[in-house]
Amino acid sequence: MTPAELIQAKRDGGVLSDVDIRSLLRDYAEGRVPDYQMAALCMAIYFRGLSSAELRAWTEAMLHSGASLDLRRVPGKKVDKHSTGGVGDKVSLVLAPLVASCGVRVPMVSGRGLGHTGGTLDKLASIPGFCSALPLREAEAMVEDLGMCFAAQTEALAPLDRRLYALRDVTATVASVPLIASSILSKKLAEDLDGLVLDVKVGSGAFMKRPEDARALARTLVDLAAAMGCPAVAWLTRMDRPLGQAVGNALEVAEAVEVLSGRGPEDVREVTLALGAEMLCLGGVSPEPEQARGLLARALSEGRGLDRLRAVVKRQGGDAQALLAGLPRAPLHTDVRATADGVVASIDTEALGRAAVLLGAGRLRAEDSVDPAVGFTVLRTQGDRVRQGEALLRVHHHAPGPVLSEVLARAAGAYRLADVAPPAVPLLLERLEAHP
Amino acid sequence: MTPAELIQAKRDGGVLSDVDIRSLLRDYAEGRVPDYQMAALCMAIYFRGLSSAELRAWTEAMLHSGASLDLRRVPGKKVDKHSTGGVGDKVSLVLAPLVASCGVRVPMVSGRGLGHTGGTLDKLASIPGFCSALPLREAEAMVEDLGMCFAAQTEALAPLDRRLYALRDVTATVASVPLIASSILSKKLAEDLDGLVLDVKVGSGAFMKRPEDARALARTLVDLAAAMGCPAVAWLTRMDRPLGQAVGNALEVAEAVEVLSGRGPEDVREVTLALGAEMLCLGGVSPEPEQARGLLARALSEGRGLDRLRAVVKRQGGDAQALLAGLPRAPLHTDVRATADGVVASIDTEALGRAAVLLGAGRLRAEDSVDPAVGFTVLRTQGDRVRQGEALLRVHHHAPGPVLSEVLARAAGAYRLADVAPPAVPLLLERLEAHP
Repeated sequence: MTPAELIQAKRDGGVLSDVDIRSLLRDYAEGRVPDYQMAALCMAIYFRGLSSAELRAWTEAMLHSGASLDLRRVPGKKVDKHSTGGVGDKVSLVLAPLVASCGVRVPMVSGRGLGHTGGTLDKLASIPGFCSALPLREAEAMVEDLGMCFAAQTEALAPLDRRLYALRDVTATVASVPLIASSILSKKLAEDLDGLVLDVKVGSGAFMKRPEDARALARTLVDLAAAMGCPAVAWLTRMDRPLGQAVGNALEVAEAVEVLSGRGPEDVREVTLALGAEMLCLGGVSPEPEQARGLLARALSEGRGLDRLRAVVKRQGGDAQALLAGLPRAPLHTDVRATADGVVASIDTEALGRAAVLLGAGRLRAEDSVDPAVGFTVLRTQGDRVRQGEALLRVHHHAPGPVLSEVLARAAGAYRLADVAPPAVPLLLERLEAHP
Repeated sequence: MTPAELIQAKRDGGVLSDVDIRSLLRDYAEGRVPDYQMAALCMAIYFRGLSSAELRAWTEAMLHSGASLDLRRVPGKKVDKHSTGGVGDKVSLVLAPLVASCGVRVPMVSGRGLGHTGGTLDKLASIPGFCSALPLREAEAMVEDLGMCFAAQTEALAPLDRRLYALRDVTATVASVPLIASSILSKKLAEDLDGLVLDVKVGSGAFMKRPEDARALARTLVDLAAAMGCPAVAWLTRMDRPLGQAVGNALEVAEAVEVLSGRGPEDVREVTLALGAEMLCLGGVSPEPEQARGLLARALSEGRGLDRLRAVVKRQGGDAQALLAGLPRAPLHTDVRATADGVVASIDTEALGRAAVLLGAGRLRAEDSVDPAVGFTVLRTQGDRVRQGEALLRVHHHAPGPVLSEVLARAAGAYRLADVAPPAVPLLLERLEAHP
C-alpha cells in the first residue's frame, strides 16, 4: 500500500500489517515519506488508536531505528523504572542507587523535563560537574562496575522516536495512548532490560488527569512491554499534589539525599519503597514485595543507597561532596500565604509546575537553559488545615521582578482552600502487571 | 493561538474563530505554517468537521487567496452548475450552451477528471484545436459576447485550494464534507455568480455512495453558498450506473451533441432539463421550473444550444465542424457479453470508471496524458433484461494487449446479473435549496 492508502486505512479504523508499518517507518526515517503524511497518520492514530499487533510493530520499528545497550556480559538482572512525569517527582534519584545497592542492575536512561513536569536529567545537572552524556560503552561499563548509571537519552537511542516526537509536539498528536506508549518503550527497551517498573501518575499534576486514562496507558504499557519480551509492572500513583516538598532541580536532589539518608518526606519514601520492591522482585533478588521492602528499608537505614549515589556521581564527573552541602541555592525566598483560615481542598499541580517552569526551573522553549537553584518548598499540602497568614509555599528565587510577581500569583492561585477537608486519596492507587 | 494550539482545539472538537482561520490560512499560503501542521489539521477536521461559521471563514480565505472573474459590466444574471462527478456525466457540455442560449450567463470554470470520474476539461480537449486555458479577461469577454465560456481552473483562481487539495490528496483527507464543500465553492464563487446549481451524485459511481452522505454534502454546499451571498439549489441525482451510453472523452462530446440535437439518451436529457430549469429560475429568465423546462425544450428542438456550443468552440480555437463528424475515434472495438440469461441487477460504476481510466480515458497519475478516442458504449444498463451472449458494453480501443484484457475483465466484473429486476431508482432523488 502507498502511504496515502495506509493513512486512509487507519483513518477508517482498519489495522495495518507489520510489513506495512515497518516499511512506512523505514521510509519515513530515510526521508521517502514526508512529515506531512506522518502528521496526518499520527492524527488518524490519535482518533483510531493502534491494535496490540500494530503497536508492537510500530514500537519495534522505533527501537530498531537506533542503537541499544548491550548488557549480555553483565551478570545479574537489569531492571529499570519509568515515570510518566509529575511535579516534585525525584523518585528516580533515590530509587536507582537504592535498588542497585540491593543487587539489581539499573541501566537508567533519562530525559529532560517535559511541559510542566521536571526531568531527571535536569535535576542531576544541578550537581556541580555532573555529566550525563555517557557514551553507550561507558553506560554499559558503569552498569557492570556500579550496578547503575544515569545516562541521557542521546541521538543513538531510538532516533526515529526523537524525530517523530518533535513532529507530534507541533501537530497536537502527543496525547495519544499508543503513541505515548511506543515512545516510552522504544527508549526503555533499548536498555536491554529483564524487567520494567512503570510509575503512571494520575491527577492534576500528571499528563493523565483521570484514573481511567492513566489506567488505559498503564495497561497499554505493561502489555506492550510483555509482548516485546519484557516483564512489566505498573503502579498508578497519586499526582494531585507535588510529591514531597521540593519542586526544582537542586532542591529535589537535596530532598532525594534526605530520603536516602533515612529521612525526608513520607510520600517520596513510600513511592520509592513500593516501586523498589517491584524492581527487586522482577530482578530476582526477592521472592515477594514485603520481603523486598525490608531489604530496601535496611539499605536505606544503612546508607547504602546514598553511598551508591555518591559513587555514581563521582564516576560521572560530579562533586559528590556537594550532594550534602554545596548544591546551588537561590539567594532569596518569598512565601505564599493563606488568605483565610481553612483546609487545602486542592492544588492545581500542573499550574504549580508551570509556575516553576516560569521561575526558571524548567524550559518554556526547547532551547532555554534551566536554573538549577530556583524552585518551591511545599509547606502545606492537600488536606492540611491552615490559618490565615500561614505560609503555604516557599518560592526560592533571585532578584524580584515581574516574573517573580507572576510566579507568586500563579502559585497562590493553584491553592484552593475550603471549609472541610477533601476525601483522602491513597498514594498508591492501583497495580497492573504483564509477563511475556 | 499558535498553529499547534489551533490543531489541538479542532482535535478536541472546539470551534476556531474567523481571525484564527484567516491568519492560519494566510500563514500557510505564505509558507509560515508548514504542510505537516496543515495535514494534521485536515485530519482533525476530517474527524471533527467545521461549523458553519468556520466553514465560511475557511472558504472565504481560499476564495480570497486568488483572483476572481469580474462580471459587473456584463448585463444579466450569471449562474453556473457544478457536478460532484460521475461516470458518463457529460451534462455540462449540454447544459452550458443550452442555458446560455436561453439568456442566462454561464461563466463555467471546469476541472480535469478526478479519480474514476471524468472531467469537463478532458472531454472538451477531444475537440481538435479547442483551448480552455483562457485568460480571465477573455473568459469575461466571452461571457459578455456569447453568454458563456468553458474555462480551465488556473493558478489564478483559489490557488490556496489547489495547494491544499494536493496535500489532502496524499494525506487521505479528501473525503471530508466541509473540505469538499470549501474546495468546490472557493472556485465556483470566484466566478462572480448570482446563482449556483449543484448536481450531487449518489451511488456506486459517485464519490458519495450513500444518500445520507450525499444529502449532507448537498446541505453543506447550498447553506455555505447562501451564507456567502449566492442563492443555490442542489439536486441529488442517481449515479448507480453510467449517465447516458457514452463513457470516454470524444464519445461523450458526441453524445452531448446528440442531446443538443434533440436526440440522445433520455437520462442525460432529463438531468439537463432539470438542472437547466433551476438555472433559468435562478437567472431570472423564468418564474418557475415547469415553464423553464418548456423554454429549454424549445431551444433544444430549434438547435439553439448546439448553435451556441459551435460558436463557443470556434471562439476557443476548436474545430466546430468536428463536433458533428471528425472527433477522434478509436479504430477497434470489442464487446463485453452476458455470460447467462438474466437482468442487470447492478453495475459497479466506480469500477467501470476505473476501467475507463486504465484504458486511457483518464489519468492514473497527475502527469499522465488522456487518450481522447477510447472509451465505452454502455449497451445494457441496470434493470435491462439480457440473453446469454448479448453485448452489455462496447469497449473502443487501439491495438489489443494486456491492458485491454484487464479492462475487459474489469468491465465484465462490474456487471452483476440476477434473475429478478432490481427496484427502480428515480433519476432525480431530492432537491435542496438555500438563499442568502
